[in-house]
Amino acid sequence: MTVAELAKLIDAQVVGDGAAEISSVNTLEDAQPGQISFLANAKYVKQLETTKATAVIVSAKGDNVANTTLLKTADPYYAFMQVAVMLHGHRKHPFGGIHPQAHVDPTASIGENTIIYPGAFVGPRAKVGRDCIVYPNATIYDDCVLGDRVIIHAGSAIGVDGYGYATYKGVHHKIPQTGNVVIEDDVEIGANCSIERAAMGATTIGKGTKIDQLCVIGHGSKIGPYCLIVAQTGIAGSVTLGHHVVLAGQSGVAGHLNIGNQVTAAAKSGIINDVEDGAMLMGIPAMPLKHGRRVYILFTQLPDLAERIKALEEQVRDLTGSDGDDGAEVV
Amino acid sequence: MTVAELAKLIDAQVVGDGAAEISSVNTLEDAQPGQISFLANAKYVKQLETTKATAVIVSAKGDNVANTTLLKTADPYYAFMQVAVMLHGHRKHPFGGIHPQAHVDPTASIGENTIIYPGAFVGPRAKVGRDCIVYPNATIYDDCVLGDRVIIHAGSAIGVDGYGYATYKGVHHKIPQTGNVVIEDDVEIGANCSIERAAMGATTIGKGTKIDQLCVIGHGSKIGPYCLIVAQTGIAGSVTLGHHVVLAGQSGVAGHLNIGNQVTAAAKSGIINDVEDGAMLMGIPAMPLKHGRRVYILFTQLPDLAERIKALEEQVRDLTGSDGDDGAEVV
Amino acid sequence: MTVAELAKLIDAQVVGDGAAEISSVNTLEDAQPGQISFLANAKYVKQLETTKATAVIVSAKGDNVANTTLLKTADPYYAFMQVAVMLHGHRKHPFGGIHPQAHVDPTASIGENTIIYPGAFVGPRAKVGRDCIVYPNATIYDDCVLGDRVIIHAGSAIGVDGYGYATYKGVHHKIPQTGNVVIEDDVEIGANCSIERAAMGATTIGKGTKIDQLCVIGHGSKIGPYCLIVAQTGIAGSVTLGHHVVLAGQSGVAGHLNIGNQVTAAAKSGIINDVEDGAMLMGIPAMPLKHGRRVYILFTQLPDLAERIKALEEQVRDLTGSDGDDGAEVV
Repeated sequence: MTVAELAKLIDAQVVGDGAAEISSVNTLEDAQPGQISFLANAKYVKQLETTKATAVIVSAKGDNVANTTLLKTADPYYAFMQVAVMLHGHRKHPFGGIHPQAHVDPTASIGENTIIYPGAFVGPRAKVGRDCIVYPNATIYDDCVLGDRVIIHAGSAIGVDGYGYATYKGVHHKIPQTGNVVIEDDVEIGANCSIERAAMGATTIGKGTKIDQLCVIGHGSKIGPYCLIVAQTGIAGSVTLGHHVVLAGQSGVAGHLNIGNQVTAAAKSGIINDVEDGAMLMGIPAMPLKHGRRVYILFTQLPDLAERIKALEEQVRDLTGSDGDDGAEVV
Repeated sequence: MTVAELAKLIDAQVVGDGAAEISSVNTLEDAQPGQISFLANAKYVKQLETTKATAVIVSAKGDNVANTTLLKTADPYYAFMQVAVMLHGHRKHPFGGIHPQAHVDPTASIGENTIIYPGAFVGPRAKVGRDCIVYPNATIYDDCVLGDRVIIHAGSAIGVDGYGYATYKGVHHKIPQTGNVVIEDDVEIGANCSIERAAMGATTIGKGTKIDQLCVIGHGSKIGPYCLIVAQTGIAGSVTLGHHVVLAGQSGVAGHLNIGNQVTAAAKSGIINDVEDGAMLMGIPAMPLKHGRRVYILFTQLPDLAERIKALEEQVRDLTGSDGDDGAEVV
Repeated sequence: MTVAELAKLIDAQVVGDGAAEISSVNTLEDAQPGQISFLANAKYVKQLETTKATAVIVSAKGDNVANTTLLKTADPYYAFMQVAVMLHGHRKHPFGGIHPQAHVDPTASIGENTIIYPGAFVGPRAKVGRDCIVYPNATIYDDCVLGDRVIIHAGSAIGVDGYGYATYKGVHHKIPQTGNVVIEDDVEIGANCSIERAAMGATTIGKGTKIDQLCVIGHGSKIGPYCLIVAQTGIAGSVTLGHHVVLAGQSGVAGHLNIGNQVTAAAKSGIINDVEDGAMLMGIPAMPLKHGRRVYILFTQLPDLAERIKALEEQVRDLTGSDGDDGAEVV
């Protein structure tokens, strides 16, 4: 495609050569002539000067200068996604339907155009919608329900038993996990995640939510729509998340909490209380972002604070003469 | 079953209609007529007023009031487990024995009534006891030994090589992991865990211990009986845990430590020293719980502490006149 | 083999009986006659007195005394590795080549002497070098490239789609992950890891790097050679690591960072800034080790610091008389 054709697709203004041909996407650093790249993170702005990309998608707001053709558009990252889909598309699968090396229980139902890779397991009475992809060695336990266009990556376990035991006289007795997992449309779940089935009712993952690699969702939790749950995050049981919640990597949410809509938590956050709509959090324990930033700056300055306390103690000792001498000694 | 029959099973006193029929369990919030629920977490006490459950198991000690029949018993959570097992039972498997899509090495031994799901792998000379369940895509490496009634969930790797290298002139040389993993009776291991085989001897998981999703147990560690190791916890190599240790989610234990009996660590704890019997810990680094609570409260109040130090400095400057003026300036 | 023969292999001086026969390795604690052990961690020095090992490898520098034969050598841990390889070798596989229960796409290429276990998946156009081992239920996505002598443990997902979405009007749109993963020679990757393919170009794992269990490497990251990435560590996208970087367990590295050569980070570190060569880090956020140690000691002493601030406030109140009385009251 030409730069001009792509520009039309993404509603961009071309500054440079609209007739140049583009065949694929690449990073600013690695792009070669014939490739298109984008700038969405200020950290890489200097690469605009040296990139060999034939064209670069940039923000219409900025006044970026480059030795290459620019496509100025409102949302460069979204525009780049559109271009990447146009030029590359999504993965082409080497087969259709249920691969013979997969195992789908005869009582399970699999929707049209759904791909089940080798080694994947779909248990009794499970329902998988249409246009789904279940990658190799993913396991969907009995009775779980997946909507349409759901993607489950390699090795993830959907509907594994919740971690529920009643301890009696020192012995842990397994509580039957009678519920299931319900995953709504357009959810994507990364590799080696574990989504626990509910002890009762359903663990639910809302429409359009994207879960990264190696996350755990506890039994009975209700994850709202359009959430982003980043790698290695763990959510305990019976937690409710609103819509558009973002939990950055290695975060944790304690059990039985209500997390409101559009809440954002920084990486490694430890959330131990209910959170209201729109809150931005960070830290262990999770604090409002503005406060948390001050706390963590002071935390890294603790040696300085301790020195100041020590200096004050010496000055006050001088003032009070409490140790009976002139304060020359250092404690 | 009737409420009265269930009450007899769990040694409960019925307050209400003992003749009502119960067919299944559910949460207080979602229960419908014909279902039984329970109250074990004070957070949900208000739901007693609105639940549609036909009966609710509550503590004999409390004086809960509800618009439904109550079953008062000593340990509602344990009683609920008994009722759930009675009404629902545990998972019914869609086949018996070793599924043809599993791979069991001819030199492995598999006990009576053990279920090996499709995609599971049991390596050379491994021994799996009776009444075990090995879920899809779990991998049991060579020479590992599982007792009876052991459950391994989807994707877990039992006996993977320990992470052991000798670095010589900058190159990491793999140390043969000549040991194995020994898992005692009644252990359950969640999905996508990794239990490393020992470099020498055995990594052991004691009887009745329950390991949650995505946990790592390092090579040569000895986990005592009846421990609870919650999701995403990592235990390094050569660690010893006593009995009834509880490590909450995302905890970590450094290598070569001795953790006593009945130790409890809060979520995200980082244990870097030996721990004596009965200790309760929290924090990074892990501290005794009472001290840790004070530390973390003060941590979140660091901006206030810093303000107080600054105020003291100003007052002391006024008192000493050390900056040569009247102290009106603010530093 | 005799002690003397092993001593020659590892360039050690024998103090004791060089003629004794050795058949296998074991820990100091569990060794029996006929076994050899080693001492590399001072924590276990007392076991030298009680071990039943026929011989023990120790440092040539120390003056260890034992009731058994000692082999004194420059680097006991490296020497032990050599002995373990000599006596035990590495795993013998129960079959050769591609197991029929594995799935290798017809367009993939697999090198000589490479072992593909049951349940493993190698996708379209993937290339696996020679002398590799792909353990059960590992998944190698399309187009990924593995060098020679690469080991992928059970359940790991190599080349899973990077976690990349463009959010537009509240909906997360998947960005095609057009790149791949390139793993150089002699890399070993533990169980249930996830190595994301790049959105563009390649995610690379350098020669000789060893990745432990349940790690995540984000899309587009470049991991240098001879790194050690310990269990449950997560590296976000577009990160660059130099050579010989060590990230201890449960560490995290934020996106788009440059981590220099020979950087070491302690367990649970949270790295949020670029790091220069040779830096040693600890903490959340990661700080230089020496500073971090002071910070964390003071952190655990926060109750004491708070008491000292309170005492100062009382003393200063006495000095200034600011509350209008003699300061006897406690606030």
